[in-house]
Amino acid sequence: VDAELMAQAQTRLDNKTKPVGSLGRLEEFARRMAAITGSLAPDTEKKVVFTFAGDHGVTDEGVSAFPREVTPQMVYNFLKGGAGINVLARHVGAQVRVVDIGVDHDFGDTPGLIVRKVARGTRNFAQGPAMTREEAVAALEVGIGLANEAKQEGVALVGTGEMGIGNTTPSAAIIAAFSGLPVPAVTHRGTGIGDGALANKVRVIEAGLALNQPDPKDPIDVLAKVGGLEIAGIAGLILGCAANRLPVVVDGFISTAGALVACELNPHVRDYLFAAHQSVEVGHRAMLDRIGAAPILDLQMRLGEGTGGALAMGLIEAGVRILTEMATFEEAGVAEGDY
Amino acid sequence: VDAELMAQAQTRLDNKTKPVGSLGRLEEFARRMAAITGSLAPDTEKKVVFTFAGDHGVTDEGVSAFPREVTPQMVYNFLKGGAGINVLARHVGAQVRVVDIGVDHDFGDTPGLIVRKVARGTRNFAQGPAMTREEAVAALEVGIGLANEAKQEGVALVGTGEMGIGNTTPSAAIIAAFSGLPVPAVTHRGTGIGDGALANKVRVIEAGLALNQPDPKDPIDVLAKVGGLEIAGIAGLILGCAANRLPVVVDGFISTAGALVACELNPHVRDYLFAAHQSVEVGHRAMLDRIGAAPILDLQMRLGEGTGGALAMGLIEAGVRILTEMATFEEAGVAEGDY
Repeated sequence: VDAELMAQAQTRLDNKTKPVGSLGRLEEFARRMAAITGSLAPDTEKKVVFTFAGDHGVTDEGVSAFPREVTPQMVYNFLKGGAGINVLARHVGAQVRVVDIGVDHDFGDTPGLIVRKVARGTRNFAQGPAMTREEAVAALEVGIGLANEAKQEGVALVGTGEMGIGNTTPSAAIIAAFSGLPVPAVTHRGTGIGDGALANKVRVIEAGLALNQPDPKDPIDVLAKVGGLEIAGIAGLILGCAANRLPVVVDGFISTAGALVACELNPHVRDYLFAAHQSVEVGHRAMLDRIGAAPILDLQMRLGEGTGGALAMGLIEAGVRILTEMATFEEAGVAEGDY
Repeated sequence: VDAELMAQAQTRLDNKTKPVGSLGRLEEFARRMAAITGSLAPDTEKKVVFTFAGDHGVTDEGVSAFPREVTPQMVYNFLKGGAGINVLARHVGAQVRVVDIGVDHDFGDTPGLIVRKVARGTRNFAQGPAMTREEAVAALEVGIGLANEAKQEGVALVGTGEMGIGNTTPSAAIIAAFSGLPVPAVTHRGTGIGDGALANKVRVIEAGLALNQPDPKDPIDVLAKVGGLEIAGIAGLILGCAANRLPVVVDGFISTAGALVACELNPHVRDYLFAAHQSVEVGHRAMLDRIGAAPILDLQMRLGEGTGGALAMGLIEAGVRILTEMATFEEAGVAEGDY
């Protein structure tokens, strides 16, 4: 990112009619948007949330409270505009684009759906690798391609989102693999499983890591062996956004698993992303710490889809508007402070 | 508030296509809005931030980094639309209404300004009471009157805001008076004073409390002796909103001093207010704890004017839209969870 422009943006913010630094993180959002986009008047007009859908073989192990068919059912719900992400994206003026990157369902010719299916779900990582390395790379490339298209189309701010019954399980496996933290410290209740199912989920992840031995120095190996297709799509989207100087807002636990893979592949990627919120999932904090990102919101959310990202987009845009719309001391004829 | 309607709202939220409780505090906002307004489809259309401006005699003691004339200068800035609150209110679709309740300046016939001047600023509370009891009551009544008018006009969601050079000083004095906490534990840097000025500010507040002996069991006594006109206006506005079942979003440190006075006068008021954000000011936490309110945002802001309240309005409205716009499991044909 452009450090010179970041400093220029802060100088401009310091001349606005307010005590220096008094808008806190809104000022951070504004100067980072300037540094990422290379403009002192960053565009935020066209906002798009990409919601990637994929299924998970590991649901055979009983890791989720919801049946697997909910993944395609929710895809239809997204396309009809009735899901949480649709409501919150509308609220902040963002579009939702739904990407079938790996749902175990034939959608035929479904209007509005972006079909980039790499496989009909992953395989059960408790019995072997979730994906081949080729599948993981193909899913990464789907995300990169969507970022490239978004840039060409003039999208100004990208959000990540996902839907995939069972996908907190690979997300916990990914942070455990990279961090070496014990699986119980990063594994939580997902959609709301009870104590027995949680203990089982921990055992499944431990078994999957022991069996597949993902190499934490090889992020694509981790992604392929214990990850998911939608997580790979998100990782690729984030890599593609960074390469295109497109700011990207990362939603909660599963999206941050994707961001973590992207950052392990290239640590500079972190400069281009915003961490939308602190999820209820206990492993999320470890991911954010590892990336070095501070969440914008903490509303005790754990829905995914991109919902936290949509809300954070509104706040990032607010920060940009402070930079571009507020009057300076000189313009307003207001006396400055003497600190 | 209506406990039955709160339960009905939560039942409705639980039927939406998401794991139960997974939208966290957005669901809290929705069910509280239902309980406050008495509707399962709470109106949020017309949003208004009231920014009360007043001056403070205690600025004679050198408690602020900014000169006193900045209060009227900022009033003109608000009316021209160039201040932080203007930008953030526009961003969430709210109006800003500026109320001269006690500025030491003659605005003459200034278009757009609501003139309800009770006095040309308070007196220096380091040398005697800031206001007479009659002045404090008159300022409370200004706020109550504005809430009554807002209700009649169909305003759906009210925000509080203020401008008054020196007003973190009376705010710290108010929480110290009610809580009995030591003054240094609730006194901070306001617009950004240095260590020496902060030590002086603490001494000024300690002296003012010792001299005036405000009675914590008599909230109007506290308000009159060490408060401010804009703080009284905010307290009245909040009392009036509660009486009219109008939800009110309380901004940061100074606004919460007003909310505290209102809640000490009538503890039921707390059910009608939302605490917008956690301010950088160290005494804010003690106020929120005493009221029993959890802040919605923590963006390290300390500007006031109503800026945090405006941002929080957008999030509260997001929660309401979840209640009113999201599809149910039945409508969307999505299978429910088995927890």
